[in-house]
Amino acid sequence: MDSSQFRQAAHAAIDQVIDYYDNIRDRRVLSDVQPGYLRELIPPGIPETGEKWEDIQQDIEAKIMPGLTHWQSPNFLAFFPANSSYPGILGDIYSGAFTCAAFNWQCSPAVTELETIVLDNVAKLINLPEAYHSTGEGGGVIQGTASEAIVTVVVAARDRYIARSKEQWATEGLNDDEIEDRVCTLRGKLVALGSDQAHSSTKKAAIIAGVRCETIETAMGDYSLNGELVTKKIENLEKRGLIPFYLTVTLGTTPTCATDDFASISAALSTYHTANPTKPKIWTHVDAAYAGAALILPEYSHIPSIWPTFADSFDFNMHKWLLTNFDCSCLYVKRRRDLIDALSITPAYLRNEYSDSGLVTDYRDWQIPLGRRFRSLKAWFVTRSFGVEGLRAHVQKALDGGELFTKLLEGDKERYELVAKPAFALNVFRVNPPPAVAKELGGNKKEFARRSNEITKKVADRVNKEGKIFITPTVLGKGDEAITAIRVVGGSPSIQPKDLESAFNIITEVVTAVWEEELKDKQSIIRDQVELQAV
Amino acid sequence: MDSSQFRQAAHAAIDQVIDYYDNIRDRRVLSDVQPGYLRELIPPGIPETGEKWEDIQQDIEAKIMPGLTHWQSPNFLAFFPANSSYPGILGDIYSGAFTCAAFNWQCSPAVTELETIVLDNVAKLINLPEAYHSTGEGGGVIQGTASEAIVTVVVAARDRYIARSKEQWATEGLNDDEIEDRVCTLRGKLVALGSDQAHSSTKKAAIIAGVRCETIETAMGDYSLNGELVTKKIENLEKRGLIPFYLTVTLGTTPTCATDDFASISAALSTYHTANPTKPKIWTHVDAAYAGAALILPEYSHIPSIWPTFADSFDFNMHKWLLTNFDCSCLYVKRRRDLIDALSITPAYLRNEYSDSGLVTDYRDWQIPLGRRFRSLKAWFVTRSFGVEGLRAHVQKALDGGELFTKLLEGDKERYELVAKPAFALNVFRVNPPPAVAKELGGNKKEFARRSNEITKKVADRVNKEGKIFITPTVLGKGDEAITAIRVVGGSPSIQPKDLESAFNIITEVVTAVWEEELKDKQSIIRDQVELQAV
Repeated sequence: MDSSQFRQAAHAAIDQVIDYYDNIRDRRVLSDVQPGYLRELIPPGIPETGEKWEDIQQDIEAKIMPGLTHWQSPNFLAFFPANSSYPGILGDIYSGAFTCAAFNWQCSPAVTELETIVLDNVAKLINLPEAYHSTGEGGGVIQGTASEAIVTVVVAARDRYIARSKEQWATEGLNDDEIEDRVCTLRGKLVALGSDQAHSSTKKAAIIAGVRCETIETAMGDYSLNGELVTKKIENLEKRGLIPFYLTVTLGTTPTCATDDFASISAALSTYHTANPTKPKIWTHVDAAYAGAALILPEYSHIPSIWPTFADSFDFNMHKWLLTNFDCSCLYVKRRRDLIDALSITPAYLRNEYSDSGLVTDYRDWQIPLGRRFRSLKAWFVTRSFGVEGLRAHVQKALDGGELFTKLLEGDKERYELVAKPAFALNVFRVNPPPAVAKELGGNKKEFARRSNEITKKVADRVNKEGKIFITPTVLGKGDEAITAIRVVGGSPSIQPKDLESAFNIITEVVTAVWEEELKDKQSIIRDQVELQAV
Repeated sequence: MDSSQFRQAAHAAIDQVIDYYDNIRDRRVLSDVQPGYLRELIPPGIPETGEKWEDIQQDIEAKIMPGLTHWQSPNFLAFFPANSSYPGILGDIYSGAFTCAAFNWQCSPAVTELETIVLDNVAKLINLPEAYHSTGEGGGVIQGTASEAIVTVVVAARDRYIARSKEQWATEGLNDDEIEDRVCTLRGKLVALGSDQAHSSTKKAAIIAGVRCETIETAMGDYSLNGELVTKKIENLEKRGLIPFYLTVTLGTTPTCATDDFASISAALSTYHTANPTKPKIWTHVDAAYAGAALILPEYSHIPSIWPTFADSFDFNMHKWLLTNFDCSCLYVKRRRDLIDALSITPAYLRNEYSDSGLVTDYRDWQIPLGRRFRSLKAWFVTRSFGVEGLRAHVQKALDGGELFTKLLEGDKERYELVAKPAFALNVFRVNPPPAVAKELGGNKKEFARRSNEITKKVADRVNKEGKIFITPTVLGKGDEAITAIRVVGGSPSIQPKDLESAFNIITEVVTAVWEEELKDKQSIIRDQVELQAV
């Protein structure tokens, strides 16, 4: 493909992308292909001679599109949004063109320096205290995902805990062999903590780091972690001879967008650390993967002010709700040295005068992989193109949509019950059994809940099977208390109030149909019973 | 930015990219900005209202370009190539537009299925035995980098070793508590291995996984690992009560592109495992990050045939030498279950009937992060656009360039000495001291080497300071034996024989200048001494 062929091909691709966005509302949001669909459509192997772009491009619509679930569609109300945007796509064009595996500063100073600048700008945008800016001892780094960020900080937390324990033992006069023995025992006792509502990536990070992981159960309906629960858990661990070294707290949990009680957690950790001066500090990480974007609004901007009192790190994804195409996860730490101490190894072929001088940032030491893409470009383009006003308007629109949906749910209490406080544009609700059934069940709450769970699951599955909108069924709590619920959250740039109204109507139609079936089933059961009695 | 503004902006961006590639030869390859250059050029903060694309785009040339090291330039002869290509850029346009954080099959079946198909195609292209294809128990997955792939397999290797040890102890009749105690001790003794020439990412992976790492020293000049060295190291570890569980072997090491002796390593491991039937197997990983691309040529295609006898996994980067813009690292495993057993955790909100049925691949369980980009698109576009012929021609061109450079070095034995066998387009050489100095040193090899090291370093630094070409100084071996050398490898799509000839001349001019300075210094020292004696 030479320059002029590329120009033509790229123009055709851009036209196709524009057409995709302009008409995305018309596509079935959830792909309905069957497993293995693509293998049947694509000839095996790589062609001997190159193919023309026209032929390749045709396959996008014919073969790829049917297998896409359209995350940019206003009908995508599942999981969390994963916004893309035109300025973001422009960023990736340049990033691909420059392709510089910028594993150190010299490999392309602009890649490192723009990242530092953009992340400081974003820190200001979300009102993140200066403790996390690069101008002090902290700073930000772009990671691929919030889960990758958690692996990074869990490893740093583990190694910081071990290093400080070693220092402590040395001051107590232990010799090297004794210290090594203790480290070996310590490793087996380290526990990473998160609430039962924290994202599963804390568990995965603990697996990767080779440490234990325990969850702290939160109260049903509230779903938020607080200082008392943390203190109880720490006491419980210590009784069992285990050692907490890391804690994930969350701003906007995945199941319900609950927010942990930062003030009481900060107080609890402070009390614990004051009472245990020789124990290294527990690393606390604020996971705000989705909801962090809301901090750009004045309404939420007070939230981070308390974080420096207890949080060693914080992460949120610009690639969720902030218009920057995946991937762009912003990890901030209070002390960059903690990451570098754990992750830096500098072999001969990566050494140069700039790295050695310590004047520059080598972000490879702030992350798991070695090489890095020029991801700050897209974040730079997005923030400049939208401006603070544009970004705020986008986030506010989703919040307004969430409120609208809450009102719709609350306006139909016969059908719906909110099972968590709506937050950050997310509504989590369950579907009631038909009124006739509810009446019959009287006050039997357990049976009511069981029937509601069944119906909710049935409704969610049927809505998704229809594929006009895509919603997420989830389960809150466990055992007898478990609630099956539906999560609805819309954050696509193209979403309008009418889309949420339409989504509500689609769900309600399905509920009506499912209710009718339930009643028919019930009537036929009654009829069968009557007939049986008549025999 | 609306559709029509995006069309205009994208066309302007594409024009700029084309201009960048067409004239890349004229740019200074190595950026010469000083640390902090960008902070002075960019106004702080995010603008309140959005900016126009024209204004943003102007900053690319004015502010970003000066801080770029141009990896696509034919004058980039450092590290390893990191090829970009037009079809690859097209892939990223669509990937960004579709932005689907495809953490499971349902999130966009096409993302998963195309990846499986493309990786099977690439497996065939590089003649990878069927053991690693998805049609059996193995399969491929796209990772961000070869270093990320190594973290992934080290974690899987560690957990497989522990799981099999537990099974063994259970058959021996140990109870759960006893087994837990043993696991705790085992973790502290596990050792990941790689040669002193293996990429530093094995060491980093071991840090992340929380296990020990030791290196196996290879012979100077040969730089390749063999079965005897592996056996000795294992024996040494076992004498010290340590347990080898993982080994990185390399096709094309970073310092010299040496290739480990797979046949003897396979035999050594087989002997060890046969002699120790109750010990779990050592996971062996073939790291071919750069040189793996050469396997597409018939000349090299016999190499992988032996891997199934010993290698659990293999990885190479399409983003290095195979025209696919960063990132696209292809990791293949012989038993996908090993990855999934270690890395899978499936919470409620990620569960669906397809995942549960086991009919589909959820690649999140094959990697560290949760979310994934649609990276197979660019690999698909690249392989189809170039075809097998085009890809082979590209790799062959770099090999031819490497041979040309070898001849140039060998044609000037007065100045240059190859310090490793040239391989995969890489030449590693040192610069001799001036002939007069060499003569004076007579047979003093140690002093000759010391002077050569000094001069080689000086030459490399000065060549890079001039910035017409970019080469990598490196150090082979350690202590008294250490050799300072220069690595030259050209793999840019735009590279021509004239570029390598020109690079050789640039280096030779610098050598000539450095030699003259050496002689002047020497003469002035002699003059000083003469004058001193005269006083």
